[in-house]
Amino acid sequence: MKSDSVAMTALGSLSKQGVVCIFGTGDFGRSLGLRLLQAGYEVIYGSRDPTNSTLLPKGAKVLTHQEAAQKAKLIFVAVHREHYGFLTALAPALEGKVLVDISNNLRRGQYPQANAEFLSTLVPGAVVVKAFNTISAWALQSGGLDANRQVLICGDNAEAKQGVVDIAHSLGLNALDRGSLRAASELEDIPLQLFPMWRLPFRIAVGLLAAFFFYVLIRDVIYASATEGKDISFRIMVSLANKAFPMVSLVMLSLCYLPGIMAAFLQLYNGTKYKRFPDWLDRWMLCRKQMGLLALAFAFLHVLYTFAIPIRYYVFQRRFTFTATLIKENKTYEFDNVMAWRSDSYLAMGMLGFAFFVLLGITSLPSVSNSLNWREFSCIQSKLGHLTLLLCTAHAILYGWDKFVKPSAYKWWTPPGYMLSLVVPFLVLSLKLFLITPCLDRKITRIRQGWERPGNAGKPNTKSSQPLIL
Amino acid sequence: MKSDSVAMTALGSLSKQGVVCIFGTGDFGRSLGLRLLQAGYEVIYGSRDPTNSTLLPKGAKVLTHQEAAQKAKLIFVAVHREHYGFLTALAPALEGKVLVDISNNLRRGQYPQANAEFLSTLVPGAVVVKAFNTISAWALQSGGLDANRQVLICGDNAEAKQGVVDIAHSLGLNALDRGSLRAASELEDIPLQLFPMWRLPFRIAVGLLAAFFFYVLIRDVIYASATEGKDISFRIMVSLANKAFPMVSLVMLSLCYLPGIMAAFLQLYNGTKYKRFPDWLDRWMLCRKQMGLLALAFAFLHVLYTFAIPIRYYVFQRRFTFTATLIKENKTYEFDNVMAWRSDSYLAMGMLGFAFFVLLGITSLPSVSNSLNWREFSCIQSKLGHLTLLLCTAHAILYGWDKFVKPSAYKWWTPPGYMLSLVVPFLVLSLKLFLITPCLDRKITRIRQGWERPGNAGKPNTKSSQPLIL
Amino acid sequence: MKSDSVAMTALGSLSKQGVVCIFGTGDFGRSLGLRLLQAGYEVIYGSRDPTNSTLLPKGAKVLTHQEAAQKAKLIFVAVHREHYGFLTALAPALEGKVLVDISNNLRRGQYPQANAEFLSTLVPGAVVVKAFNTISAWALQSGGLDANRQVLICGDNAEAKQGVVDIAHSLGLNALDRGSLRAASELEDIPLQLFPMWRLPFRIAVGLLAAFFFYVLIRDVIYASATEGKDISFRIMVSLANKAFPMVSLVMLSLCYLPGIMAAFLQLYNGTKYKRFPDWLDRWMLCRKQMGLLALAFAFLHVLYTFAIPIRYYVFQRRFTFTATLIKENKTYEFDNVMAWRSDSYLAMGMLGFAFFVLLGITSLPSVSNSLNWREFSCIQSKLGHLTLLLCTAHAILYGWDKFVKPSAYKWWTPPGYMLSLVVPFLVLSLKLFLITPCLDRKITRIRQGWERPGNAGKPNTKSSQPLIL
Repeated sequence: MKSDSVAMTALGSLSKQGVVCIFGTGDFGRSLGLRLLQAGYEVIYGSRDPTNSTLLPKGAKVLTHQEAAQKAKLIFVAVHREHYGFLTALAPALEGKVLVDISNNLRRGQYPQANAEFLSTLVPGAVVVKAFNTISAWALQSGGLDANRQVLICGDNAEAKQGVVDIAHSLGLNALDRGSLRAASELEDIPLQLFPMWRLPFRIAVGLLAAFFFYVLIRDVIYASATEGKDISFRIMVSLANKAFPMVSLVMLSLCYLPGIMAAFLQLYNGTKYKRFPDWLDRWMLCRKQMGLLALAFAFLHVLYTFAIPIRYYVFQRRFTFTATLIKENKTYEFDNVMAWRSDSYLAMGMLGFAFFVLLGITSLPSVSNSLNWREFSCIQSKLGHLTLLLCTAHAILYGWDKFVKPSAYKWWTPPGYMLSLVVPFLVLSLKLFLITPCLDRKITRIRQGWERPGNAGKPNTKSSQPLIL
Repeated sequence: MKSDSVAMTALGSLSKQGVVCIFGTGDFGRSLGLRLLQAGYEVIYGSRDPTNSTLLPKGAKVLTHQEAAQKAKLIFVAVHREHYGFLTALAPALEGKVLVDISNNLRRGQYPQANAEFLSTLVPGAVVVKAFNTISAWALQSGGLDANRQVLICGDNAEAKQGVVDIAHSLGLNALDRGSLRAASELEDIPLQLFPMWRLPFRIAVGLLAAFFFYVLIRDVIYASATEGKDISFRIMVSLANKAFPMVSLVMLSLCYLPGIMAAFLQLYNGTKYKRFPDWLDRWMLCRKQMGLLALAFAFLHVLYTFAIPIRYYVFQRRFTFTATLIKENKTYEFDNVMAWRSDSYLAMGMLGFAFFVLLGITSLPSVSNSLNWREFSCIQSKLGHLTLLLCTAHAILYGWDKFVKPSAYKWWTPPGYMLSLVVPFLVLSLKLFLITPCLDRKITRIRQGWERPGNAGKPNTKSSQPLIL
Repeated sequence: MKSDSVAMTALGSLSKQGVVCIFGTGDFGRSLGLRLLQAGYEVIYGSRDPTNSTLLPKGAKVLTHQEAAQKAKLIFVAVHREHYGFLTALAPALEGKVLVDISNNLRRGQYPQANAEFLSTLVPGAVVVKAFNTISAWALQSGGLDANRQVLICGDNAEAKQGVVDIAHSLGLNALDRGSLRAASELEDIPLQLFPMWRLPFRIAVGLLAAFFFYVLIRDVIYASATEGKDISFRIMVSLANKAFPMVSLVMLSLCYLPGIMAAFLQLYNGTKYKRFPDWLDRWMLCRKQMGLLALAFAFLHVLYTFAIPIRYYVFQRRFTFTATLIKENKTYEFDNVMAWRSDSYLAMGMLGFAFFVLLGITSLPSVSNSLNWREFSCIQSKLGHLTLLLCTAHAILYGWDKFVKPSAYKWWTPPGYMLSLVVPFLVLSLKLFLITPCLDRKITRIRQGWERPGNAGKPNTKSSQPLIL
């Protein structure tokens, strides 16, 4: 029984978690010390100037580095790398101790060697563990309620790592072992990252937005100014933005599903799922979620801009002029049943598509996708995703309707913007349609269950393939 | 002290986590091996063909099953159930080992006996633990960032389970003990589930949607066609959908609160909270959250469809005709203060109700509800929930206004759709009003705090009641 | 190796987790017992009446308190504080046992002494641990899927606490050590809290809403009634609300960023970051997230109310009258390019601001902010936050346009509402602009990296400062 180990011999002794030493009395050192004290550890600070301890948490002792090192087996080095120098002099006292390197750098590649590895060469007699550098002092102070609570740990000695894992757990944090000390530089890069997975999708989005915006700018504002001499530049703020947003959204949504289809064709061609995909396809597949969320953001803007149409001064003025002109000329505005069907269908497709899109976005929230099993997650992301793409494509087609046959739509021989944005969705949907024909579908399913075309099994492969998630 | 155990005797030995064996070199076996290696374990694969190890992670050894089994105490059986046969021959080598069954089936009820139990009968000398089957190979590979990280474990030997729990923790996964090996078939069903809690609410939603849609279809489109010969079928896309959506939403929202009220009356009638509710009520109460979220989805569609009204061609055309007719006939359109109050109140109730509804939806996100204590959660879900229902009901009543007294509203003797959707909300709200009268409220509170009407205490009850959460 | 400890000596023994005793057979006691049994513990209930065990989970034994206490080292006391009396008689049997106090009170400050401390004085020979009181019986029953799974633990004996931590882990719950038994009263208050962090922001929001609403009520409805004798009270429902909502939203959004700016100026003035902020500033900074979310809620309402404008009866009637009047008087409504630019810019600023605001709200969801590192979180909350404030302020300025120069806007010598709501945003943005001038920015950065103005270092400070997060 677990609780059998709860020996009552030391009844009444308040602190039983043991002694932990912290070198450094900066922000992090103090926050860590406070949390360790709260969790029942005895905390000893090592300081250049042990008499100046006014800012340290109550209950902690302050000694010189030398004295502090002798009191504990485990020492947190909460000191900037520039000041590691003093540790060489302490090397004898640190023999056999566990040094926890929690340092971070100001930028990536600041030093050729990871701080923890550098520490290890400075004090070769100690066991260095890299940990806690991904936790902020603020997260420690505020009880970690709103912040990242994952302590990443690496080091070459498993027992030393276990000691750090235990401390993390007793502070209410999760611990994740990331392997040997060679992983230290990777861990030290993590707090310096700025949305690494979002970079490619973000660049694609900005590129598409700029391209589409200038395209509609030329066809609308500049064309009107050049051919009719009219200044309709005010349309930039809402009308043109509301043309570019849905185009970017639709293209990016279809770009989420294109790599999955490419992967399926590659697997069919290779006759196995155990062959590595090209690197660009791997990278593309890993940022589909981010692409989809950016597409959703543009769809959201499109919805906002569309619902604002009837509030616009320009729209009210134009509707007034239309009404007044017809009345003065004593004309009627006949109801057109086809037009009503088209207008309503176009709106309905768009709104249903947006609603499903929002659902896709919600299920990609970490806490929601965590609560789904694999089958549920792929059902939503693949089936619902393709349905969303289909509805949004239908929305764009119904929006265009018969415009594509009218020569007047091709100003300066360029096709209307919406036609450009339909190219990729059409490609994705028709290839998908091809893939779900019973014949191909059966083949793909067999390959994904591990079947290999005879003759493939022997070929050497250096990396396991990515599973298909969409 | 925890870190006292960090004995420095084996300083420098890289791998101290121990040896783990994996039978099977498929997707899951390889992903698991890679993660185990990263966490510092020594990994040995057991394979039919140890010479073919090109796809395996670097650093792992490959031996025959027999040899591999002898090297480790704990063996992951990453093999499909169909191929368990080879293990009988290995039985002597597996004596006293821990076999971790990670297998899944293709469909529920594929085999009468759970895979893990089957494995246990094949190798009776080994200790079988069912675990890791709810984790996908993808989750293991991608570091588990976006995927479900909960390892469910069951087995008859606690120490063996503890060993698997330790491995799960060292891979950065959460472990949850689900009891003895009899729970294995339950665990094996989990990855095959497809939204089990959503099924009943989804069916109710589809049923209500179909019923209401046909109801308004008959009253609007078919009635107009039959009595006036007019084709207004274009109204199907937006107008009729926007009548059916809010009706479904309102009825489903009130169905969330009906079982709680029924339970309260049952408790009042029984005079105790320790009497079991009928099964149908239990099931109903367990899917209230899903019902509420579906109701929110329909409310969201209703909001989208409503805001799209002024963009519709049909609406513009009708407004033009109305304006033109009045102007030609030189009539004025007098401002009606009551109409203005009613129109604005109806919109305001709806929008406030929707805003509260969205708040309810946000607090039902796992990560948000996790951060609330019991009192906060029930305050939001019950008080705010009933307020939302009240606002939405008021919205529907103000929408209808005095329509219910006009005979013309009863086409073909049927009441307008919105009246149908008000039946359940009215029932729920009036029963709730009855329950919160001081007299009944005091009684309910006492019962929920454990009070029992004399004479009840002795009655045997076989199952503890569900607490009321709404 | 961990699994080396998986000794196979006791092969086949089902329950190896040990024996746990539970005093009390109420809701919580039963739910806890069921979960412990599922996790492989042997559960013994201590009851006044051991023969009446009909509601207890199958597999549990029921004995008298005396007998049950002798069987286990760890005893859950699942009894209300009022009934702790019987434990004094049992004191000899409880000598050296771990008593886990799980009790809660009905209201804060119900007793001068925490329940766990009271228990400790009743049975001085036992080791008392406070735990599990923040977990509801419902969370235990439902497998903790939707509920708070954090077990907070405090007590004076570390080994006893470790035993409870182990039990929490084996039930699939997270454990967080909160220090010595003196923390018990704090833990007992947690389940009684009702949104403590939301109180101040909520009061500010309600206060601002009431103030702004009455301000616009006086200027619109009462002014019209007093000076022109017109009854436009119907405007209360939508028009006035839609004036007050954006004002509250904008002021509250800027109040999120004001304390960060004040803190920066204080740090500049003090020449150090190690000096404590005044208490009111600390408290203000800790509730910025809640302020921001309330501001988002009002912005959401503003968006809903704005999009509903063209559906309003009043708006349709007014537009009709405007159109009809111009047509009858044979006037035209000339297109005004400046007006079109202004109208569209004002809408575009508002919609972009709202979209960024929603993004800010999404990243404040616990599961999303958990997946961001410190740099990413502060980049979004600070950079994107100030951009949102800038866009929303521009939206309000463009809305007002040249109104502020027209004397007619100052009814009863009061400025239009939107001007009031611009005061704080203007202040925040201009101070921020001042702070990001290179000269000041460099100084602030140095201070935040730990630099102190000479002469400051010696001053005693009693509390470490809050880090700046915005």
